[in-house]
Amino acid sequence: MQPYVVVMAGGSGTRFWPASRRARPKQYLPIARGKVMLRETLDRLAGWVPWERVLVVSAHSQRELVRACLPELPEANLLAEPAARNTAPAVAWAAFEIARRDPSAGMVVLAADHVIEPAASFRRSLEAGLAEADASGALITFGIRPTHAATGYGYIEVGARVGERDAIAVHAVARFVEKPERARAEEFVASGRFLWNAGIFAWRADAILAAFRAHLPQVLAGLERAYSGGALAEIWPALPSLPVDTAILERANNVRTLPIDYRWSDVGSWSALPEVSAPDAQGNFAFLSGGARLVAHDATGCVVYGEGEGVLALVGVKDLVVVRAGNALLVCPRERAQDVKKIVEALERDGAREFL
Amino acid sequence: MQPYVVVMAGGSGTRFWPASRRARPKQYLPIARGKVMLRETLDRLAGWVPWERVLVVSAHSQRELVRACLPELPEANLLAEPAARNTAPAVAWAAFEIARRDPSAGMVVLAADHVIEPAASFRRSLEAGLAEADASGALITFGIRPTHAATGYGYIEVGARVGERDAIAVHAVARFVEKPERARAEEFVASGRFLWNAGIFAWRADAILAAFRAHLPQVLAGLERAYSGGALAEIWPALPSLPVDTAILERANNVRTLPIDYRWSDVGSWSALPEVSAPDAQGNFAFLSGGARLVAHDATGCVVYGEGEGVLALVGVKDLVVVRAGNALLVCPRERAQDVKKIVEALERDGAREFL
Repeated sequence: MQPYVVVMAGGSGTRFWPASRRARPKQYLPIARGKVMLRETLDRLAGWVPWERVLVVSAHSQRELVRACLPELPEANLLAEPAARNTAPAVAWAAFEIARRDPSAGMVVLAADHVIEPAASFRRSLEAGLAEADASGALITFGIRPTHAATGYGYIEVGARVGERDAIAVHAVARFVEKPERARAEEFVASGRFLWNAGIFAWRADAILAAFRAHLPQVLAGLERAYSGGALAEIWPALPSLPVDTAILERANNVRTLPIDYRWSDVGSWSALPEVSAPDAQGNFAFLSGGARLVAHDATGCVVYGEGEGVLALVGVKDLVVVRAGNALLVCPRERAQDVKKIVEALERDGAREFL
Repeated sequence: MQPYVVVMAGGSGTRFWPASRRARPKQYLPIARGKVMLRETLDRLAGWVPWERVLVVSAHSQRELVRACLPELPEANLLAEPAARNTAPAVAWAAFEIARRDPSAGMVVLAADHVIEPAASFRRSLEAGLAEADASGALITFGIRPTHAATGYGYIEVGARVGERDAIAVHAVARFVEKPERARAEEFVASGRFLWNAGIFAWRADAILAAFRAHLPQVLAGLERAYSGGALAEIWPALPSLPVDTAILERANNVRTLPIDYRWSDVGSWSALPEVSAPDAQGNFAFLSGGARLVAHDATGCVVYGEGEGVLALVGVKDLVVVRAGNALLVCPRERAQDVKKIVEALERDGAREFL
């Protein structure tokens, strides 16, 4: 079974405003070890599969960003969605395309905007998951051991151990739980029986297509029409907009999970960057590109993002987020980074599209 | 006696970095009621003297800035210093030029970068000072009643009351005191006998020229050579670089002071701006020009300076200075604004001239 890598790069979001904009979401920002996150996602797997077996699902409007970021990607491997329909249609499209090329292929599904270390552990887990998927026909979701009572992720309750692959345990899934309230999340973490559902999957293309046929047949029907000469631009926007987790995995009865032990972060906001990067000599976390430089005097603990020629000077401040990107500037305490959305909302209310 | 207005606009400085740069010091920044300080300095006197009797002494490198700011200023009234020689040579040049035009003229000397309110009180004090100077031949320095024990200003110890003009008392000067230590400044303020020496003067042109002849004759000699066909560019840099306060006023025996009662600030740093401007509805002090806008969410007490198209977004911060100007950005607490010089020093050490 030859594996394909499918990278889900169609996301949008405002949590990294003003660096991320409508026209350039987080996965195109250079915040992963100095590299653009999408690039780092593929570099993490360098040599593992050839570029011919890498598919990137992205928004139609982001095609040029993907090409600039991944010049090695064959044109036919860039699946450009005419509209955002969440992950289920995107996964189905990738599986459909892969099955056309190689009906017995396996596939792993990754997000374009996660930080995962070390790469070797990550690859080993993907191989174990693919081996399990190949042997059993199961749909594999990799589960992250929770480090805190996060309320922003779905959880997987781990079921019986059904085996192991390359010394990694394979478990049945007792149930999926949507993003919980704080108290419930704390119970989950305390129980030791729950994992975060991180959106990293492995399966055979035919197995996921069978699951779509059973649980979301209209998506497959749409893809069949499109591949038979239909207009994707018309078909796609009419597909149901659903996440693959809830639309398929929670309904399928052949889901298994591999608890993994690498460091994982979905880098959900500016405040997550210190968790996935090293501080400089003064204790600041700097993300500088295009000639930006930081001059800090008695300033520490700050997350500093700068793009383009220019100096960011900090004096006597602590634990701030300071971002200079394009025509906008953001200053906020690290612990208030989630409130960046308030600024975006205010700009939307004002119709200030040039800043969005 | 017809009065001339002489504006000293040759200063440079780093305390408003990054808005102020070598090529554009503080007097050219729009921080006085939304106007450039030099412009506001003349607008404060609008109609008081005609432009023919306004002289601006500025650095040769700042001529275009002066012209852009004061298009009404006659070309011959812009005295462009080939090099910075502090205020004594600048005052002498202006007096020399004025005396050539009108030997009986009076003159007031003002800084280009002070905030003074209300304008009516200010003008009234200038008129009173000029009347006293005309009648007595004295050199008048206006004294500011100290509001706190400032260590950054020189002080005037007030001597005997010698009269009054337009209900403003006229005093002899007991002595001038250089910038004092904190404890001494506190004594001065407590005594009630001391005023700040603010660099605002009134005198007859012939009287100040006589004082130069007595105390700094080489400056007059240099001006005479320059006005007799000598090369100012060669003569000027060889003149002594001295402040008019210490080189002339402290030595002259005909100095008088008028204590004034208007609000005065030399706006010495970013942290001084709240004293001379009104907060917006959220309690921030915004200085925005060229399309800059501020979006504040739960942010208050901040001094925000922005130039050019762009948004400055503040979330959850308090009492910060946030400046976006050209290719540089500054973030520091208001009470640390004096440490901006540390950044400038660091950039100088790095040879980063493009930011200075």
